[in-house]
Amino acid sequence: MTPQRMHMANSYDPSAARSTLPPSAAALLERRERVLGAPYRLFYEEPLEAVRGEGALLFDAAGRDHLDVYNNVPAVGHSNRRVQQAVADQLGRLNTHTRYLTHEVVDYAERLTALFPPHLQQVVFCCSGSEAVDLAMRITEYQTGADGWLVTRHAYHGTTRAAAAVSPSLGPNNPIPRHVVLVDAPDQLREDPAGIERAFAARVTDGIETLRQRGTALAGLLVDSCLSSDGLQLDPAGWLRSAVDVVHRHGGVYLADEVQPGFGRLGTGWWGFPRHDVAPDLVVLGKPMGNGLPISAVMGQPSLFDRFGRDVRYFNTFAGNPVCIAAASAVLDEIEDRDLIPHAAEVGRHLLDELRRLTADDERIGEVRGSGLFVAVELVRDRAGRAPDAGAAAFLVNELRRRRVLISASGRDGNVLKLRPPLVFGHRHAERFLTEFSAALSVLGAPG
Amino acid sequence: MTPQRMHMANSYDPSAARSTLPPSAAALLERRERVLGAPYRLFYEEPLEAVRGEGALLFDAAGRDHLDVYNNVPAVGHSNRRVQQAVADQLGRLNTHTRYLTHEVVDYAERLTALFPPHLQQVVFCCSGSEAVDLAMRITEYQTGADGWLVTRHAYHGTTRAAAAVSPSLGPNNPIPRHVVLVDAPDQLREDPAGIERAFAARVTDGIETLRQRGTALAGLLVDSCLSSDGLQLDPAGWLRSAVDVVHRHGGVYLADEVQPGFGRLGTGWWGFPRHDVAPDLVVLGKPMGNGLPISAVMGQPSLFDRFGRDVRYFNTFAGNPVCIAAASAVLDEIEDRDLIPHAAEVGRHLLDELRRLTADDERIGEVRGSGLFVAVELVRDRAGRAPDAGAAAFLVNELRRRRVLISASGRDGNVLKLRPPLVFGHRHAERFLTEFSAALSVLGAPG
Repeated sequence: MTPQRMHMANSYDPSAARSTLPPSAAALLERRERVLGAPYRLFYEEPLEAVRGEGALLFDAAGRDHLDVYNNVPAVGHSNRRVQQAVADQLGRLNTHTRYLTHEVVDYAERLTALFPPHLQQVVFCCSGSEAVDLAMRITEYQTGADGWLVTRHAYHGTTRAAAAVSPSLGPNNPIPRHVVLVDAPDQLREDPAGIERAFAARVTDGIETLRQRGTALAGLLVDSCLSSDGLQLDPAGWLRSAVDVVHRHGGVYLADEVQPGFGRLGTGWWGFPRHDVAPDLVVLGKPMGNGLPISAVMGQPSLFDRFGRDVRYFNTFAGNPVCIAAASAVLDEIEDRDLIPHAAEVGRHLLDELRRLTADDERIGEVRGSGLFVAVELVRDRAGRAPDAGAAAFLVNELRRRRVLISASGRDGNVLKLRPPLVFGHRHAERFLTEFSAALSVLGAPG
Repeated sequence: MTPQRMHMANSYDPSAARSTLPPSAAALLERRERVLGAPYRLFYEEPLEAVRGEGALLFDAAGRDHLDVYNNVPAVGHSNRRVQQAVADQLGRLNTHTRYLTHEVVDYAERLTALFPPHLQQVVFCCSGSEAVDLAMRITEYQTGADGWLVTRHAYHGTTRAAAAVSPSLGPNNPIPRHVVLVDAPDQLREDPAGIERAFAARVTDGIETLRQRGTALAGLLVDSCLSSDGLQLDPAGWLRSAVDVVHRHGGVYLADEVQPGFGRLGTGWWGFPRHDVAPDLVVLGKPMGNGLPISAVMGQPSLFDRFGRDVRYFNTFAGNPVCIAAASAVLDEIEDRDLIPHAAEVGRHLLDELRRLTADDERIGEVRGSGLFVAVELVRDRAGRAPDAGAAAFLVNELRRRRVLISASGRDGNVLKLRPPLVFGHRHAERFLTEFSAALSVLGAPG
């Protein structure tokens, strides 16, 4: 594993032997490598050829189902019929941009803002989380006149140049500029829970001082409300509060990245930031918003949007188009009508409890943590030393894939299993996962 | 009109009286202003409420049709049935990302690359033209180790921070950094045609020297193959050739922005760059690619993609998803099966001829130029002085809108009418346009 590739915990190695692939997948892979550029990566030692999806299942070319315990984008289920119908209906009626009046985007914007605290009363739509992060940064910098950012050490916020500059998880060849300072994320397994809030605020204070020493003023703190790529650091809820106070005292903006926690993922409500009892100045939404149709958003208040809007403006041809909006509306319908947030809380709680029970005496499991349908299993060499074991995580990811269960790994050391299924993941899916996980654990050797 | 707003030639003034709006549109506008952020702008003195589209027509809330002579995104027509069916079918089957093997994206990538010269044999998909420009710039800079860019003086290439930095048409509050040098675009109306190629190459040479003086090496020349936002500068075909030679001699990359000219718009083939007999190193595609579904692409060769891909990689959650790919495939089907490229050539030629005939003796019309279904009408105070007349252009845009014909204006001075309808625009649409344009001209007074 080369140093570059370590930064994607779970990628297919194109130089590996292909004998394990079914012939049709091997042929498709050959064609793919010819025509898609080198930036593309596949998951797993044995890549999956996906031909059909349904609920929490993905089917391969031979018709075998694979349990999807990874994909957060199809939150209301693969091939969701309500999303399909809403998109098809709208495509037969109108699809245009926001320089005409169209009621669809206004209806949805009203519905979306109503799910936020009253101060977050306006929205600007984009196509991807990256675009939304990029725009939120531009708005913040225009408003504050500063360009210094604090982000966590293994953060991922996107792939435009501006978003990549605040995404150290992209690896050593993605340079982090001097006006971006990395702050160690909380580490639930290794830090004293009682001190996490104070310690993180102290690191943020230090970060602002580092920016100052570099001659840069603070624009803001950009942070994923559940620290997905820093290994899912959730508790104690509230650890973010003092850091946000520090940022506000220094005139900075608190920009909440809700691309991962948003839309009910954590089972505690629509968004992740309220768990910390904090009030973001701007919020970025993405991934599950349209169940796979490209749509994202920046939520904010007129005091932040107005000057940028008046002086600079922003137009994005595809953003807020009625078709992607129709998908996003259907997603809200599904989450509400099927009670998917309490469902995520309940199934997630069961999964968490059972995983803890299953691994209670397993020295290789440092911690099982989670909220709703976002669960992390942290692999260590032993519980006393708590040294990260990325090899064990990679083994389990690939062993589960052979057992037709799809997960991935994340975290600064690549040793944290990431369980993040569609929200329609039910108890029967949880049972299947637990059975296969138990079997995979049983073939995982002692730390090597 | 404030200095800021001048840079959008054709926007609704929110402070204007709303008495002309139908009550339903006025109510919708009130709601919209509350919930969509200030960056949003509407077209026209009297904004259009669009509720339905069909072919080259947009219908308002009262059921009145408006002739769409502006929207290039729905290239194969508003509410195209083939696109609708393809998207609906795919949404019922599978929609996921490119870290699984899926044949849809490979099939389409093969089909797309086959429409390019053999050296442009690979593709990376994104969601918007902005994302594609942003990525192409990152790839170029990683490969060349330089970050100096040349773009035309009124260029528009997108709205991510990196793309906005090369988009001077966004106006005075969108700062252009020192590593970006603006080069005057050719001006068909005011320059000697025989000297345009040499003069532009000389300005590019000067631009490279300016970069050098600023301590910046040349990364590349980024140019829209038909200079849409510089007022549509098309002829003489070939004017770009010597400039590209200069860039290559200086080790720079020629990045062709085909977001506007691409997919048959110019009637001369699939893309705009072959009119100049040049070979781009990278090409960016967007707008009409998915008929409104968010999809864009960077085309290139392994020599440019490989190192960036290996060292940095690129993943975009929504990009290359099978649903947007299905839309893009249906667009190719429609363009091919309905012969839309020769159709655009034929209808565009008729439109050009008739507009020239109609305005032959009109001192206010400096020039009518175009290719395929992209036609520009340049308004001047008189033909001898050729001074731009933005007021006349704005008058005609709004007068035509009252006559239910939708166009816009562009160009450095906002004095160039932009006619750029869906490619399904037919002869009967052209006749309707010519009738209304003639009527609008008849109420346009002498230059004031």
